Amino acid sequence: MNPRRILLLLAATAVPLAAQPGQRPNIVLMFPDNLGWGEVGAYGAVRGVPTPNIDSIAAQGIRLDNFNVEFSCTVSRAALLTGRYAIRSGATQPAGITLWEVTIAEALKPLGYASALFGKWHLGGSNWIKGRTPIDQGFDEWYGIPNTSNEAQTTTSPNFNPATMETPHIWEQKVGGPATKAKIFDLESRRTLDREAALKSVDFMERQVRARRPFFLFYPITQVHFPTLAHPDFAGKTGAGDIGDAMADVDHNVGIVLSALRRLGVERNTMVLWCTDNGPEGRRPWRGSSGPWRGFYNSVMEGGIRTPCVIRWPARIPRGQVSNEIVHELDLFPTIAAAAGADIVPKDRPIDGVNILPFLEGKRTESGREHALYFTGTQVRAVKWKDWKFHYAFMPEPRVTEPPLMRLFNLRSDPREESDIKDINPWAIGLFDKLVTDFKASVERFPNVPANTPDPYTPPRRP
Amino acid sequence: MNPRRILLLLAATAVPLAAQPGQRPNIVLMFPDNLGWGEVGAYGAVRGVPTPNIDSIAAQGIRLDNFNVEFSCTVSRAALLTGRYAIRSGATQPAGITLWEVTIAEALKPLGYASALFGKWHLGGSNWIKGRTPIDQGFDEWYGIPNTSNEAQTTTSPNFNPATMETPHIWEQKVGGPATKAKIFDLESRRTLDREAALKSVDFMERQVRARRPFFLFYPITQVHFPTLAHPDFAGKTGAGDIGDAMADVDHNVGIVLSALRRLGVERNTMVLWCTDNGPEGRRPWRGSSGPWRGFYNSVMEGGIRTPCVIRWPARIPRGQVSNEIVHELDLFPTIAAAAGADIVPKDRPIDGVNILPFLEGKRTESGREHALYFTGTQVRAVKWKDWKFHYAFMPEPRVTEPPLMRLFNLRSDPREESDIKDINPWAIGLFDKLVTDFKASVERFPNVPANTPDPYTPPRRP
Repeated sequence: MNPRRILLLLAATAVPLAAQPGQRPNIVLMFPDNLGWGEVGAYGAVRGVPTPNIDSIAAQGIRLDNFNVEFSCTVSRAALLTGRYAIRSGATQPAGITLWEVTIAEALKPLGYASALFGKWHLGGSNWIKGRTPIDQGFDEWYGIPNTSNEAQTTTSPNFNPATMETPHIWEQKVGGPATKAKIFDLESRRTLDREAALKSVDFMERQVRARRPFFLFYPITQVHFPTLAHPDFAGKTGAGDIGDAMADVDHNVGIVLSALRRLGVERNTMVLWCTDNGPEGRRPWRGSSGPWRGFYNSVMEGGIRTPCVIRWPARIPRGQVSNEIVHELDLFPTIAAAAGADIVPKDRPIDGVNILPFLEGKRTESGREHALYFTGTQVRAVKWKDWKFHYAFMPEPRVTEPPLMRLFNLRSDPREESDIKDINPWAIGLFDKLVTDFKASVERFPNVPANTPDPYTPPRRP
Repeated sequence: MNPRRILLLLAATAVPLAAQPGQRPNIVLMFPDNLGWGEVGAYGAVRGVPTPNIDSIAAQGIRLDNFNVEFSCTVSRAALLTGRYAIRSGATQPAGITLWEVTIAEALKPLGYASALFGKWHLGGSNWIKGRTPIDQGFDEWYGIPNTSNEAQTTTSPNFNPATMETPHIWEQKVGGPATKAKIFDLESRRTLDREAALKSVDFMERQVRARRPFFLFYPITQVHFPTLAHPDFAGKTGAGDIGDAMADVDHNVGIVLSALRRLGVERNTMVLWCTDNGPEGRRPWRGSSGPWRGFYNSVMEGGIRTPCVIRWPARIPRGQVSNEIVHELDLFPTIAAAAGADIVPKDRPIDGVNILPFLEGKRTESGREHALYFTGTQVRAVKWKDWKFHYAFMPEPRVTEPPLMRLFNLRSDPREESDIKDINPWAIGLFDKLVTDFKASVERFPNVPANTPDPYTPPRRP
């Protein structure tokens, strides 16, 4: 073997400075909006739009086939960032969550992490600017929209009057400073926001790697939420309609982030998560695909609450895994905490997430989660336990219940929730009721934060 | 580099005898029954039953996401083995196809291929034993059921009387000899037939490799057709119901075949195809999953005619490909012919298949097929052209049409065939009518073999 070859080999296996043993891992959490299972290559994409970058995360790590979320945008993001069912934090679209909640960004801060959000917030309510910005919840900087992508439609709506109506903006803010308007959020800037956010993500990561500071990048991608209008680079390019174009856009942006990790030499010690917030939109013209599942977001059918999620962390998670173990977005907070190697999950309140890191690492075959509750509003609508799902108020379409309300399905023999087998499984109702009762008992002990609670919130003294 | 290491390297790269340059490739065609898109890991399996062996074919070659078939069992097998739409060969369940048809096995014979079928035939009609066995269509040996898996239910049906009713059997036959009964085909032997067929496949391949003879192994797996009762090794084992158990069974048997190829040293120069004959069963209790598509077999909805298909050939087909190009089972005959490197596709009749080998090899980005016709009975029910599909008699469920009969869908923006956009695409009907007219013109020139035609068939003299 000649010396040059040896040098090359050494170079290839050298540990980059930023990934030295003992260095806490970086966390990159990408979280697109209303993006259904059927759109992703690794899950058998229906539109024939390749998603090689997203798929590469699965190939280099794990594809979760039973990843569960709350059923719509704000509650899903609340659950994700707090590790608590949204009903506990009282999360609502109009009000968001209180500052009493501890987000992943807040928890990582004492460990020296830099945290940033680029994309969509939607946890601050309509008065977000008065103390409920991402900065107020632990991020060091953010750029994006405070609420939802719908608002891109405002300035072009027939009755829009800038004198009497608020013009939506893309905002930016750094810790210690005020939120300022970056540009108007309209049908044009809606197309480019995700790309901007990806490039800002790269800039953020570059700065942290240079400063040798571990980082938490939260990239809540605004696609494919309506209006599903992709970046001009992709609009009309895939031949697969607006959603197809948007998928090409999403995947391209994921590629920008992934290649930056490679270029910065931090690929190996960065945990990358790409998971979606809830099932697809069902309304036309931007009707997405739930893949093999039934239903859409805003329902607790599998199509609403089972979404694609792929995770890699080359230093710790073996490649090429696929699993049907139940995992919930609630679990990501404790799992990220475990990845960071610190006991940073709050102890003074119920945390519904479990640490699934040993499972991701292949040290355990079980995820550690056997069940999940699904809420709409303040009601438990359904509960999943192992392969079974019990609906308390069967609602195949949003807002329309269908008798009989209580139904039991075995999701593996009946993945589309079609054949109610409650009556031939009389054991079920007791088991599922117990899971609900256990949850209610914890609420008795730790009352939920009421919806629309202003700051500062102080929990009631416990007896 | 020490000598031992060099030797090891040489051993690892040595070309096995059976794969010498110039040796024609072996062909292994596995073809399960009524197995839906949603059941396969590589396509995002719904039941959480891993299918690592099937998935490995995709990973080592190509996953086709737009593989098209005829809508039910006999017509699909006729199209597969002849490269001709089944309506041309007059294929029916009661009668099968005439001996005038040229099958893949017959075409490969002059090249020195040994051919065998282990599993299900279903191209000989109810009088198959009188001159329409697999041997009569070019196979050198076969073992399995002459018709369909339903018949496993016969001996246990309430009114079964062996004195007056025929007892179904598993049969075996070698070229030059008569078909003989191997065992009764009932609910027990139904469970083990696929395993037996896999082991016989291995034995067949061993014999050919020993004889240095290229082989065509056709393994028409009988699962997951009803009665979906898996091998005792898997029955009740997956927790995912009968179909889940059967999938574990199928994948295990695929593994038996694949590991034999490896062990025999012919992995590199063997083209392996694993594709399914039509969409899943819709009837309960053995209702399968069409994945993201709508409909079931016996309909020309995508759920009926778009099925999983994975292909590998390490010597020629690059690994890790995924494609949405239209491919049809019709194309496998010309493609296998091209793989064998010989001009063996019949010239005296219309062949509807196109050679997609250059596409599989990555030499072309297009498959070479832009459209496909879908028949039920003698009618063209629908036509796919590029991303579009035109239904002439929209029938979302088998046998039930729904007005308006003529509907147009864009499959990429509307993968579930829900939003008819015929009226806003007035160009479409002319284009689709032309495709149908072209087909009819070829039928004028080369009349279809009438259904139920006895042997010998002689085509009418052409004017």
